Amino acid sequence: MKQEVPYKIYLNENEIPTQWYNVRADMKNKPAPLLNPGTGKPLTLEDLNPIFCEELNKQELDNDTRFFDIPEEIQNFYKMYRPAPLVRAYFLEKALGTPAKIYYKFEGNNTSGSHKLNSAIAQAYYAKKEGLKGVTTETGAGQWGTALSMACAYFDLDCKVYMVKCSYEQKPFRREVMRTYGANVTPSPSLTTNVGRKILSEHPDTTGSLGCAISEAVEVAVTNPGYRYVLGSVLNQVLLHQSIIGLETKAALDKYGIKADMIIGCAGGGSNLGGLIAPFMGEKLRGEADYQIIAVEPASCPSFTRGKYAYDFCDTGMICPLAKMYTLGSQFIPSANHAGGLRFHGMSPVMSQLYADGMFEARAVEQTAVFEAATQFARVEGILPAPESSHAIRVAIDEALKCKETGEEKTIVFGLTGTGYFDLYAYEQFNSKTMTDVIPSDELIKEYLDKLPKVPGQE
Amino acid sequence: MKQEVPYKIYLNENEIPTQWYNVRADMKNKPAPLLNPGTGKPLTLEDLNPIFCEELNKQELDNDTRFFDIPEEIQNFYKMYRPAPLVRAYFLEKALGTPAKIYYKFEGNNTSGSHKLNSAIAQAYYAKKEGLKGVTTETGAGQWGTALSMACAYFDLDCKVYMVKCSYEQKPFRREVMRTYGANVTPSPSLTTNVGRKILSEHPDTTGSLGCAISEAVEVAVTNPGYRYVLGSVLNQVLLHQSIIGLETKAALDKYGIKADMIIGCAGGGSNLGGLIAPFMGEKLRGEADYQIIAVEPASCPSFTRGKYAYDFCDTGMICPLAKMYTLGSQFIPSANHAGGLRFHGMSPVMSQLYADGMFEARAVEQTAVFEAATQFARVEGILPAPESSHAIRVAIDEALKCKETGEEKTIVFGLTGTGYFDLYAYEQFNSKTMTDVIPSDELIKEYLDKLPKVPGQE
Repeated sequence: MKQEVPYKIYLNENEIPTQWYNVRADMKNKPAPLLNPGTGKPLTLEDLNPIFCEELNKQELDNDTRFFDIPEEIQNFYKMYRPAPLVRAYFLEKALGTPAKIYYKFEGNNTSGSHKLNSAIAQAYYAKKEGLKGVTTETGAGQWGTALSMACAYFDLDCKVYMVKCSYEQKPFRREVMRTYGANVTPSPSLTTNVGRKILSEHPDTTGSLGCAISEAVEVAVTNPGYRYVLGSVLNQVLLHQSIIGLETKAALDKYGIKADMIIGCAGGGSNLGGLIAPFMGEKLRGEADYQIIAVEPASCPSFTRGKYAYDFCDTGMICPLAKMYTLGSQFIPSANHAGGLRFHGMSPVMSQLYADGMFEARAVEQTAVFEAATQFARVEGILPAPESSHAIRVAIDEALKCKETGEEKTIVFGLTGTGYFDLYAYEQFNSKTMTDVIPSDELIKEYLDKLPKVPGQE
Repeated sequence: MKQEVPYKIYLNENEIPTQWYNVRADMKNKPAPLLNPGTGKPLTLEDLNPIFCEELNKQELDNDTRFFDIPEEIQNFYKMYRPAPLVRAYFLEKALGTPAKIYYKFEGNNTSGSHKLNSAIAQAYYAKKEGLKGVTTETGAGQWGTALSMACAYFDLDCKVYMVKCSYEQKPFRREVMRTYGANVTPSPSLTTNVGRKILSEHPDTTGSLGCAISEAVEVAVTNPGYRYVLGSVLNQVLLHQSIIGLETKAALDKYGIKADMIIGCAGGGSNLGGLIAPFMGEKLRGEADYQIIAVEPASCPSFTRGKYAYDFCDTGMICPLAKMYTLGSQFIPSANHAGGLRFHGMSPVMSQLYADGMFEARAVEQTAVFEAATQFARVEGILPAPESSHAIRVAIDEALKCKETGEEKTIVFGLTGTGYFDLYAYEQFNSKTMTDVIPSDELIKEYLDKLPKVPGQE
């Protein structure tokens, strides 16, 4: 039934999905399995259980079950900040003068400021159910650490966050949000782990890295009884939990009889992109409908558009499993780019396989163009977007302007993953015109890709 | 009709009120008029028009019209971030183990992070309609300046904000939000005005004050053709615009057949409190219903509970009109208290008259107790509240705990005016246990009250 579309479509609480959707069930070519870096063999439940929670490991390895019931306690928690609105961008359409109809799914209406909470609460729930004392993780920009802190506070779980030292010092506000939620936040590298002490003895002045923080968090999880390690992106389980974004988006569109033509999401590790497009991709895989789907990544860290589809380490410390994914090499360090959440060198294996199969396209955009779009959006739509989310805004605006030229009334849906309230240093750079774009050279990318690990059957 | 109450009550967009409610129309004892400080006579439209917008001055002086139509363009803008949800605090109730039913009206789902946008957009609209080039204002904590910047960006009005110098330097994030919305932000005192130059020549090292910033903003408005000065609280017009908060709250309660027993709001200049309680107070004034209404102020700046109801200057610079209000004296400087929005020495004349008439009660609470409540709330309800809003949370929790003792199932409604994302320095102090409570002595308050201006008919 068609009705006039309001500015914001809020589902009723009883319309929030009660199952997560596993897109792997509809993929003919399944994502390649994670490999044990020592043996080169696919990881089993037995390999994974000492590190991650058991129930989550089952979700990780299950390529067949189409729907997973969302436990009632997680459904209740979702009602704290969901349904997230699907917003009709009437103000932006008017400002652009486009005949396109633009919608965005806004995931920023919670204190973590992003979609990360959708998976954090699920991972905390299973940890609690397993009787664990707590969980460990790393955080760079801080969105994931904040979300996990909120989830752990709810279930009264101990939460140990290793925060990259330079972020710990430069982003005291994120740190304080985590502390307010009761998390134990340690600057990494630290003296609390063997790996941290080793690094500090060799490099006493290091400001830390995500790879080092991962290594510390994993060490603490593995060596402390009652603790497990959790991760905010890349993994199959995370994409499963994040499918709530796409399922709600589709339910809201269906409620008003709207058919999307184009779906746009920013891509870092793939958690938001994979979640947003899940049910649409499912229809596409089953041949029930077609959509133009666009992944948007930073030109400074272009894993889809300039990386290689190959097995690689998930971390710079090279202690984590090998994943087959679009990668720039685990030693690739992106240039200073404030879209912290998009700086990962690799990409979700699920999204990588779908991209390899030609199921969607990818575009790389430059930072200053992203902040131009962010500012334009903020002024007319009233939300100051996160730098990550603004990558999707950039391409949505570009596509809407193309519609203005051609006169096409396309329906564009994009994911607005979060708010930029903790990214004002980046906005300050943009406002002061000191922001620059740094794009890696072909030589630099080749140098890192030449160092990919040797895996049987891989060139 | 009673239905099960959802976690969040969102009105439909066509249920958003289309008129503001003027509580003065139902007051038997009208608020005392503003006086010209030179002549001691009530201010007229002719006095006000050089400083403020004409249409707003009519609203300011109109004690009789009960409802004002909200212009269509403002209604449209409201749809960008309204309706604001009325949230049933199921999680908080459970954590407290109280039989009380707690609701809060959340005004923080917009980039300004507070309810201030409700009046900013109205004031910008009338300035645009009058053909002005721009508006000037001052800001301390930065919420009002941010809201006004957003409103001016929407109407393409120039926005000149004088920001207290110490805030300008210590709160660079708020400043950058304003700049992102195109505002011109000047640290005050500055060399751009006569009053600023005079102060700087006498006190070259001053870090500024709200009083000085007001003086600069007014000077720029009065001396530049096409500019007017706007203000975010205290004035009658601001309370009129903020009535949208209470009207939506009442509509949401009525939709589910809920009768509030108690309404709680934080009180600084009175803009949130006056807006939230407006329609409930109207019923009370007309004898149609009764509510227990509680204003909550900081113990460090207790204008209702320890001030005097008398004519006083609205600004420390003593250039603005005289208002009859509960005041601690225009020269009173509250101790360091991070609830920046509640540090005003006086109070809205409307709220002051209602308080003098015994229509509501007031309580003063200490800062550390406020942050305890804020943290408890954040952990279970998922929203990191602004320090200002947390004053209301403190009393709501206290009252809910009283219900636990007595077994009463009271329905408590409080105003959650905004988020604390730009107040993390204060949370850091609380988390690090370095936060203190400073309460002014009776001698100090007497010293300032003894200096109230001489006005005919006032002791």
